[in-house]
Amino acid sequence: MSAMTATGKGAATRETILARAHEIACCTGLEGISIGPLAQAVGMSKSGVFAHFGSREDLQLAVLEAAAERFGEAVLVPALAEPRGLPRLRAVMRHWLDWVRTNSAGCVLLGSVTEYDDRPGPLREQVLRNERRWRETLGRTAQQAVDCGHLRAGDLEQYVFELYAIPLAVHYEAGLFGAEQARQHGDRAIERWVAAHAPTA
Amino acid sequence: MSAMTATGKGAATRETILARAHEIACCTGLEGISIGPLAQAVGMSKSGVFAHFGSREDLQLAVLEAAAERFGEAVLVPALAEPRGLPRLRAVMRHWLDWVRTNSAGCVLLGSVTEYDDRPGPLREQVLRNERRWRETLGRTAQQAVDCGHLRAGDLEQYVFELYAIPLAVHYEAGLFGAEQARQHGDRAIERWVAAHAPTA
Repeated sequence: MSAMTATGKGAATRETILARAHEIACCTGLEGISIGPLAQAVGMSKSGVFAHFGSREDLQLAVLEAAAERFGEAVLVPALAEPRGLPRLRAVMRHWLDWVRTNSAGCVLLGSVTEYDDRPGPLREQVLRNERRWRETLGRTAQQAVDCGHLRAGDLEQYVFELYAIPLAVHYEAGLFGAEQARQHGDRAIERWVAAHAPTA
Repeated sequence: MSAMTATGKGAATRETILARAHEIACCTGLEGISIGPLAQAVGMSKSGVFAHFGSREDLQLAVLEAAAERFGEAVLVPALAEPRGLPRLRAVMRHWLDWVRTNSAGCVLLGSVTEYDDRPGPLREQVLRNERRWRETLGRTAQQAVDCGHLRAGDLEQYVFELYAIPLAVHYEAGLFGAEQARQHGDRAIERWVAAHAPTA
């Protein structure tokens, strides 16, 4: 077996472990991951899993990082194909509401905020880094809409807070009264927010 | 012992059980309540607890109902002292943000929405009833503000969705970046929402 193939096989095994750990985290949170049952689920020994992830915490961090990447690929990447300004901001928000629907049963990212809000350590640090990065991206996208003359200038942090509130409320309402109603309220909230921030003529 | 005293003592014991069960639910959710450890915690036998609550589910329902009552007393009752219209709507929102701060560690009501979003049964029914009741109250309060000429008329359900989004976002952001920053964003969001719905002159 060439070194190349060995690396490829190692990477594939790593992916398998990660995918299974992600599934577990969707149901029980990142704290629900334990190496024993996970190793069993992927048909490996515990030491086999540890060969890929040095510790349980390393694995949790990798799952969190993979979830953040998947979020970026689903929400940000397709929006980057839209022109800067309001078209791109709208696309981000629309893809975000799509993400909420797809991941309503158990979003590792949303769950991680609650899991680590009072639990200091590397996982909480990573949660905060992810959140800051996403808020910066959202703020930058809104700022571009201001620069393009599509939105009134204002407190960007406040804009981010208010835009962020929409997918949160959609997630919450979907669990109560169904995805359809929640999505309609979310879509209208985006359009009403945009209209309330139209540049004054 | 007179019947009166016996009833009083029974009610006090019921309250003690309920208070302890509420504390447990704050940490682990309503599903975290189990009769054995609870009985031990209040120094009773399991059958002693069952004499007050016929089943685990009855007890969970009672905890949920007590949490909803406490929410109403903290958020709605003081607001009713304010004049109808915008003063009362603002008071509801302000007391709601106070509630979010006080209960940030574990709000049984907020938790129950996630716990029962995919678990049909009497508890989910009660969660839905509580939510509908609160949304109706919020909608009525907003409608009064419209009737008083303090807000523009519009889709009340949409208004409720957007107002509800603010405490949700404050709760979320407080866990990440602290209660102070979250509260400031929440207060500003309320004022900005009110301004965006000012009646056109």
